[in-house]
Amino acid sequence: MAQFMDVHRGMKGLTREQLEEAHQADLRLQAEEGVEFKHAWLDPKQGVAFCLSEGPDAEAVRRVHERAGHPPDEIYELPLEV
Amino acid sequence: MAQFMDVHRGMKGLTREQLEEAHQADLRLQAEEGVEFKHAWLDPKQGVAFCLSEGPDAEAVRRVHERAGHPPDEIYELPLEV
Repeated sequence: MAQFMDVHRGMKGLTREQLEEAHQADLRLQAEEGVEFKHAWLDPKQGVAFCLSEGPDAEAVRRVHERAGHPPDEIYELPLEV
Repeated sequence: MAQFMDVHRGMKGLTREQLEEAHQADLRLQAEEGVEFKHAWLDPKQGVAFCLSEGPDAEAVRRVHERAGHPPDEIYELPLEV
């Protein structure tokens, strides 16, 4: 398993409820792709969300988000952390 | 205190040792700006690093990184998380 950060842009004004709803949609689908979403953060002023996940590869992470209706703009694999 | 994610680009090929060294430089300076860096992740292939921190404002986060020699390309304030 690898770790990933994906970035969603165009999220200006998203509310806490909308963020939770989007995250729940990911959680409902993630097992089918072998992905586990760990955390999501949102800057509603600049309209950017970050999702931290573990999964087999970036494409599996992308598929969960796409099936949930919010494809990410960027996905980064994170082999190093401190 | 608020929470921030900052993004550093142009980090292709950065090693674990270099990431740790850069993070330690931030930790040595952070108290002077009232900032606490919580975590850093690196994608060495795409050359992107993410730093999660708490601090009084984005400018304080920026000052720590600038003084440590690695100004961030983007800083996001994250009032919402799940």
